[in-house]
Amino acid sequence: MSKLRIALVQMLVGANKAQNLSTASNYIAKAKSQGAELVVLPECFNCPYGTSFFPEYAEPLKPGNASFDCMAEAARSNSVWLVAGSIPEEVITPDSEKKLFNSSMIFSPLGELVSVHRKIHLFRINTETVKFDEGEVLTGGDSPTVVPISDGVSCGVGICFDIRFPQLALEYVRQGTSFLVYPGAFNVVTGPVHWELLAKARAVDSQQFVVLCSPARDESASYVAWGHSMVVDPWGTAIAEAGVGEEVIFATLDLSTIASTRQKVPVLKGTRTDLYAMEWNLARK
Amino acid sequence: MSKLRIALVQMLVGANKAQNLSTASNYIAKAKSQGAELVVLPECFNCPYGTSFFPEYAEPLKPGNASFDCMAEAARSNSVWLVAGSIPEEVITPDSEKKLFNSSMIFSPLGELVSVHRKIHLFRINTETVKFDEGEVLTGGDSPTVVPISDGVSCGVGICFDIRFPQLALEYVRQGTSFLVYPGAFNVVTGPVHWELLAKARAVDSQQFVVLCSPARDESASYVAWGHSMVVDPWGTAIAEAGVGEEVIFATLDLSTIASTRQKVPVLKGTRTDLYAMEWNLARK
Repeated sequence: MSKLRIALVQMLVGANKAQNLSTASNYIAKAKSQGAELVVLPECFNCPYGTSFFPEYAEPLKPGNASFDCMAEAARSNSVWLVAGSIPEEVITPDSEKKLFNSSMIFSPLGELVSVHRKIHLFRINTETVKFDEGEVLTGGDSPTVVPISDGVSCGVGICFDIRFPQLALEYVRQGTSFLVYPGAFNVVTGPVHWELLAKARAVDSQQFVVLCSPARDESASYVAWGHSMVVDPWGTAIAEAGVGEEVIFATLDLSTIASTRQKVPVLKGTRTDLYAMEWNLARK
Repeated sequence: MSKLRIALVQMLVGANKAQNLSTASNYIAKAKSQGAELVVLPECFNCPYGTSFFPEYAEPLKPGNASFDCMAEAARSNSVWLVAGSIPEEVITPDSEKKLFNSSMIFSPLGELVSVHRKIHLFRINTETVKFDEGEVLTGGDSPTVVPISDGVSCGVGICFDIRFPQLALEYVRQGTSFLVYPGAFNVVTGPVHWELLAKARAVDSQQFVVLCSPARDESASYVAWGHSMVVDPWGTAIAEAGVGEEVIFATLDLSTIASTRQKVPVLKGTRTDLYAMEWNLARK
């Protein structure tokens, strides 16, 4: 695989879950019809973004549940890779406790669930105009998620606030990913300053593609998303960018530019692995 | 200390070392006369930037050598903190081998050398128009450098290519710095895309001030520096920026914005220290 055609679905998310799933399905089919091999949905695509909504919209990530079934079928029937943004995930622990995660399902073109990424870094913000704390209802995940796409090509997944942590991207670099996908819903306070900056920063630090997919902006929502879904190449140049409304944008990832960028400015080869290392999974050691 | 007034000397560097030192001294005095408490010089301020120049201009970082003596005196006589950009440092090893480093001397207002940062990540670039490999003549340093400025306020130092490595900035965050200083000479290929981006990225990731000081641009030089010395605040906003020519720019670091930024968007508090850690000094373990 030398090129990968991807589509980012910057969809409007409303209160009707069935409608949201239908919207996503329709856009996935449309993306496929325009040549997409991998489709990305935004963070929280089945549910308005808000802690008061998460418990009601949450589902187990298993067959027999609406969001799982709909996305598995959309991937299978269109024969595309699908990074299904995120939804609130419900998990019943062995001791019958209910936990909620902000989770991304990744389906293969066969409609098989190949990976789940649980948002590791829960979002908190406390400004005059925007206040939010996912930790009120969500539990954070504990693992990086690398999805093998084809021989030698894999992607690392993060969700929104995860992009603020180079520690995660560095782990993906170590595992040899070719691109990083972050479904994310930044807001109108952090969006103007940090969204594009962080997309480009992670691309330039990691010398690989970075893909950010936001919900469309809904000024009437309790949480107003930034929009501006974008794709950045390994040199740090935006090769596709959405506005704020509902739209699907496309980009072709020319994977050969990863090696050529790394040859021009050998950052990864210059990493001083003799001096430092990012150690993960401390909790399990 | 709640505020710190700093000056960045974006000076033109030529072939005459004595002249370069005199230029630096004069600008340090000028910066002091305009209220600077800490002055930053650019990377390679005593020497044209080029591997062919480094051996000839290199000096031990000790009294009795021109660059050391001049900078110690400039810090002392003006009673300022001085991050003396960098110069080629000559070191004779115990087995009589000569090594060269790209090193920054940091002097206290008493004129005492308090720290030396040796560039850890040596610069390499290989594009059609710019080719450079510091490793041809330089040895890389092996340690982060934290300079205590006053009670509770310290700065982390990196040199140019060091800014591309979040691993170093993360270590400075762990050690509790308030600002990061990177003397650096980006060029006209990487400068337009990466200079401001990396300054802002390290500021936003680390939620502290970032200071980049470049030589002024000299179109006749073998290596044409980018200029655009800048200071970025913890939110990621540039609060001072130079053009490309010779000038001194000033900024007042309001250190209280570090805490207020971290309260607005608690990135550092959200770091999952239960899951991962950046381990340094592997070589010594």
